[in-house]
Amino acid sequence: MITKLVDEGLTAVEEELQAVVRSDVQLLEDAGRHIITSGGKRLRPQLVLLSYLAAGGQDIASVIPMAAAVEMVHTATLVHDDINDHSLTRRGKISVHARWGRTFALLAGDYLFTKVYEMMAPYGPEYNVLMAEACTRLVEGETLQAAAAKAGTMDRETYKQIISRKTASLFRAAAHMGALMGGAGEESAGALADYAYNLGLTFQIVDDILDIIGDPETLGKPVGSDVAQKRGVVMAHNGGRLAATHREAGEAVAMAEQSDPIAQMLARLRESGAVEVARLQAAEMGQRARAALNGVPDSPARAEMLRLVDKVLDRQR
Amino acid sequence: MITKLVDEGLTAVEEELQAVVRSDVQLLEDAGRHIITSGGKRLRPQLVLLSYLAAGGQDIASVIPMAAAVEMVHTATLVHDDINDHSLTRRGKISVHARWGRTFALLAGDYLFTKVYEMMAPYGPEYNVLMAEACTRLVEGETLQAAAAKAGTMDRETYKQIISRKTASLFRAAAHMGALMGGAGEESAGALADYAYNLGLTFQIVDDILDIIGDPETLGKPVGSDVAQKRGVVMAHNGGRLAATHREAGEAVAMAEQSDPIAQMLARLRESGAVEVARLQAAEMGQRARAALNGVPDSPARAEMLRLVDKVLDRQR
Repeated sequence: MITKLVDEGLTAVEEELQAVVRSDVQLLEDAGRHIITSGGKRLRPQLVLLSYLAAGGQDIASVIPMAAAVEMVHTATLVHDDINDHSLTRRGKISVHARWGRTFALLAGDYLFTKVYEMMAPYGPEYNVLMAEACTRLVEGETLQAAAAKAGTMDRETYKQIISRKTASLFRAAAHMGALMGGAGEESAGALADYAYNLGLTFQIVDDILDIIGDPETLGKPVGSDVAQKRGVVMAHNGGRLAATHREAGEAVAMAEQSDPIAQMLARLRESGAVEVARLQAAEMGQRARAALNGVPDSPARAEMLRLVDKVLDRQR
Repeated sequence: MITKLVDEGLTAVEEELQAVVRSDVQLLEDAGRHIITSGGKRLRPQLVLLSYLAAGGQDIASVIPMAAAVEMVHTATLVHDDINDHSLTRRGKISVHARWGRTFALLAGDYLFTKVYEMMAPYGPEYNVLMAEACTRLVEGETLQAAAAKAGTMDRETYKQIISRKTASLFRAAAHMGALMGGAGEESAGALADYAYNLGLTFQIVDDILDIIGDPETLGKPVGSDVAQKRGVVMAHNGGRLAATHREAGEAVAMAEQSDPIAQMLARLRESGAVEVARLQAAEMGQRARAALNGVPDSPARAEMLRLVDKVLDRQR
């Protein structure tokens, strides 16, 4: 029943996403549709819908544009990320920048962001302030990540800051806005936001693990793309065994100039033990997400949110 | 008196712009401040302030964040434009992408756009819908321009579409929002928006002329940067003498592979007569801007708006 409601909501979100990228500038519509229809887990809109329902919301249509907007923020950043990372594929399809070139990818990302703004505008100040802040955090997180990659330095605090801002902040805003739309009180909205924030941290750690150990066929993208950007150092540090893994990572990076460097770096990271430590950290963040839901009255939506933690922890792609 | 009010408002806008880019991510603050403090004519925030005053607004402080947001949209697009145009200088200073590199310039542009969103969020739906639409038009205009430059084709209708969307739409939104904030009725707000839209067209045509005939020292940037992107074709077509200037422009573009191609293209365009025709078009758009103000009650702000048309037509940089 709850699954059916959420599935119907997600179908409406897809329709909204498709509709909102329509433009008489064909290239923007084509590029927008290309990235929108390339799949994606739609976790962020799910959080809007589930929080709305968990808070007692009765008219799910009222949060569809909001849920679509949250997904669109994520989608816009993917387009810009792929430019900066020189990624040729995304979700098993050619990336926007590989297909249309860098100039149009930059503009397409900007376009998708203006569409976020269009979808959110009718919701009024309270929601737009939350969304704007999440967008700012996201760009800050991306910048911290690029700066750390460029400097070749990374510590656990920086890694935490990065995943908090670039991923968890938008998860939090999604749940927070959904909860407020559903009529949640301050405490309940805060608990749902806290849940989503920790789910976001869990999600990103798992994502970084998959970049190192995942199966490229299952993932729909090459593994090692983060490592190739020297972000494997993040992973190594995240392992917590700072001294040992830092040396490992340093060696791995040094090998980048040799033949088949990414495969070699991945092998080193897999052997370093960092991945196992990261798994424990993901499990810890997942547990915090579950604990946050203690402050939320029981409901089918709340139960689904608990299951979502397991899904995020267990995912293989 | 009116000039003093506007000057004080613009000073407050500068302070707002400086304040809003503050971040613990130093690079974003530095890049933001770099582009903000590099001058700029601040035409768009002036339009917010003047429309507000022309509409009878009494509390100029209430539109300062809005005026800053409008300038910030423009500023964000400059940062992204300079990436796509490979421009090394902007307003006589090194461009953000030349100083910090492409990755960080892309993120800095995104960051400034999230700041637009932050500043606008408190104003509520009516204003945010107007601003969001202007942002979408702007990106569409940039995309049409890049597509035309890439295809090497351009006609007058496309040129009109480009300058309408990439420049005039934001001018219009600035005046429209300012007028509504000042309490203007629908007719008066529409007239002020119409004025600003035509002022925007005037401004962009003059800007394109200056790219061809301007003095680089006065402009603070190299001339011919549009021509170098094959956008000189736009100018030639804008001249209206389609058959003749198209051939001229075609020849000019063909010369691009030869030595000192930009100087040669500029020389051809200057000799083609296109610039003189463009001047007449700018004058016509300026006249339309003045005429739009017939629908607005007389006031010091309205008088200043009339003077602004002359300033835009007469500017040398």
